[in-house]
Amino acid sequence: MDTSRLATVISRHASELRQAERMQPETLKDYRSAALRAVATRAQEASPFYREKLERAGIRPGSIRGLEDLPRLPFLTKEELHGHPWRLLTCERRDVMIIQVSTGTSGGEEIYSAQSRLDLQYHLSAHYPSLLPVTTGDVCLNALPYEMSTAGLAMHREFTENCQATVIAAGKGGAYSTPAKTLKVFRDLRPSIVITSPSWAIALAEEAARQGLSLPSMAPRRMWLTGEGCSPAFRRRVEALWGCAAFFLYGSLEGGMMGVECEARQGYHLTQGHTLLEVVAPDTGEPLPPGSVGELVVTALLRHDSPLLRFRTGDLGVFEEGTCTCGATASRFRVRGRTFEQLQYRGQSVSPIFLEEFLMRMPEVGNWFHFVVPASDTARIKVRCEPATGVRPSRELGSTLASRMEFFTRLPLEIEFVEHLPRTSAKALRVVRE
Amino acid sequence: MDTSRLATVISRHASELRQAERMQPETLKDYRSAALRAVATRAQEASPFYREKLERAGIRPGSIRGLEDLPRLPFLTKEELHGHPWRLLTCERRDVMIIQVSTGTSGGEEIYSAQSRLDLQYHLSAHYPSLLPVTTGDVCLNALPYEMSTAGLAMHREFTENCQATVIAAGKGGAYSTPAKTLKVFRDLRPSIVITSPSWAIALAEEAARQGLSLPSMAPRRMWLTGEGCSPAFRRRVEALWGCAAFFLYGSLEGGMMGVECEARQGYHLTQGHTLLEVVAPDTGEPLPPGSVGELVVTALLRHDSPLLRFRTGDLGVFEEGTCTCGATASRFRVRGRTFEQLQYRGQSVSPIFLEEFLMRMPEVGNWFHFVVPASDTARIKVRCEPATGVRPSRELGSTLASRMEFFTRLPLEIEFVEHLPRTSAKALRVVRE
Repeated sequence: MDTSRLATVISRHASELRQAERMQPETLKDYRSAALRAVATRAQEASPFYREKLERAGIRPGSIRGLEDLPRLPFLTKEELHGHPWRLLTCERRDVMIIQVSTGTSGGEEIYSAQSRLDLQYHLSAHYPSLLPVTTGDVCLNALPYEMSTAGLAMHREFTENCQATVIAAGKGGAYSTPAKTLKVFRDLRPSIVITSPSWAIALAEEAARQGLSLPSMAPRRMWLTGEGCSPAFRRRVEALWGCAAFFLYGSLEGGMMGVECEARQGYHLTQGHTLLEVVAPDTGEPLPPGSVGELVVTALLRHDSPLLRFRTGDLGVFEEGTCTCGATASRFRVRGRTFEQLQYRGQSVSPIFLEEFLMRMPEVGNWFHFVVPASDTARIKVRCEPATGVRPSRELGSTLASRMEFFTRLPLEIEFVEHLPRTSAKALRVVRE
Repeated sequence: MDTSRLATVISRHASELRQAERMQPETLKDYRSAALRAVATRAQEASPFYREKLERAGIRPGSIRGLEDLPRLPFLTKEELHGHPWRLLTCERRDVMIIQVSTGTSGGEEIYSAQSRLDLQYHLSAHYPSLLPVTTGDVCLNALPYEMSTAGLAMHREFTENCQATVIAAGKGGAYSTPAKTLKVFRDLRPSIVITSPSWAIALAEEAARQGLSLPSMAPRRMWLTGEGCSPAFRRRVEALWGCAAFFLYGSLEGGMMGVECEARQGYHLTQGHTLLEVVAPDTGEPLPPGSVGELVVTALLRHDSPLLRFRTGDLGVFEEGTCTCGATASRFRVRGRTFEQLQYRGQSVSPIFLEEFLMRMPEVGNWFHFVVPASDTARIKVRCEPATGVRPSRELGSTLASRMEFFTRLPLEIEFVEHLPRTSAKALRVVRE
């Protein structure tokens, strides 16, 4: 029998965790404090890496009492994880059940995620029935990558184990998971739920169009989009093509599933049974007040054998104030994309999602585009894009759209129409440097 | 609590099933009879499809007593499964946990595999510790496709749940699972076990060569090859490149893991805790005596909610007589490849694996090849292949090798050297028609 401190915390809060998105402030604080204490204590006791790290930060063993001590913990960075697959372990290597690896889009050596049986078992403790309204009888087309990265297998477990639903293990890309094959499976099995990336949702819709197939005529009940930044305007395009509501989901290899949109779609609700989230100043690491944009820092509450303490995600985000109309108590935050993906231009930092939002509002523009950052600050930012179906591209049209977009973005832009941009089953590329 | 008949059978034989490859004849017969009775009875009681099918075959409900009644059961064919994802279910659709789909290499509408929680739970009852000697502490690089097909996820469960080992969810192909990425993970994590397809093992070794990396210097303890037919000569090449022993494993979407080679490598040992296997005449369906080559027919013993009764695999095979030196009691069989993949030539049926065996014994020939079946019976079978590294191809060399191979195969052959054949992350293509 397992008698870890964390197991005790989980069993004490078991009934509240069944609806983790609605925990009351006092219970939540109590749970989080106890879980943080259990996880941080285990990290300090059982991981040489953390022991040394925490000691260097002047934290005496056993001195972490709860939430109030969170700011005392040192940050964990991607650099510390690059190429160190076993670094976070507080268990024996032999206890690891599954090892997965980052997609590598942020560069550097690989980051690995090694999780034990206990990690995976504890993960199943917290539920979000109103944020992830999937249940027995739902058939979920899981069109996220199952190989290497965590996305596909994590949502597979979430839907099958936590929601008790049926999953179609479709995957995304690869020899057996082409858009044509995925669409065939979609037609044959008529899933009620689809989860995929925004760009893959478009690739599937394009395949449907090629086959003369109306997706809205067999619309799923709802869709989740994840794995790539996505603007509301792009989402509306996905929704129009599929004929169903699409919700964003925010997660990563290191932090797991951190945020899920509710019906109100005013930012992500924090998966507060699993996650502590802070917003800090990217340069100083100082905590920022609600309403300030900063780097998201994540601490995992249910990782017993691979503790994640104050991990700097490299993503920019901001907490929203006020309660949500949906009734969930879980705090809300927005993500502004990854630090390294921001366009640096004339001393300004511009989110590609911000540009995308205005680009995607223009019906003359197709669904595939790049932002080409110029080498010099005197040149304009080039938007390379396909025209929408049926639109005849011209220099004049480009100028008109560019000035329309300039009006909203206040950035000097240029639009270049190209016939075809490459499709990929990897993450869609939005920012290129030439 | 589950009180299905099959659950009772499993719990009664629990201790023997822990070493299912060594069950004694009497126990085995008793177990198989009871499991077949449980599964067939459930099929007849709970599946409209089977009920009608069995009735048509004159089988009264409740009349299946055990093994002796197996030949009375009607065959199940691929045609009956094509495009009918729910056909085999004896449970509610809502009880299905996971749906997977065939790779589609045998043509026709898709074949789906829908399994319930109970199916997957019962699957974990039988173990083959000497055939699959993987245990706690082993790190298994799972380089089989996780998406769509069953191979990757099935071995993932086998290694993590049944063997309690660590799995690296590498996958095979796809945006995140290129040979370069897989090799990076291999170098970083030094797995003790590798499981993949024969052609992918070569693709990975080619990537290692490109990087100037010696695979044998970090050889895993052992390797399993599956998903494609493979000759012993091709296996020896894989073993030389990787510096470790490679074993074959035989499975399919419909039948699951049916055969595993032991140390003696004299055919597959049947996974007798899961599987009944018959060899029948492809034309008449009559059972054939041991030693005769015929079509393999599989019945699943542990599928409660998706019974598979006498499924015609379309694979040719033959049972081996005599006991194995390895000590396993599980009967042995060999597979001769798929019926539709046999080369039909001058009234003869030739297995591509037979041709491959002789081709791969010639060191002048590289690791990638096609057999091109001529349109006319007067033409020769063309072997299109790459030369081995460092070999200068010439017409003369081609003629010499062709006549050497003709001597063994007694078939008129022609060898055409090409610089490069396309690599694929799908199943390797061995037979082409031009």
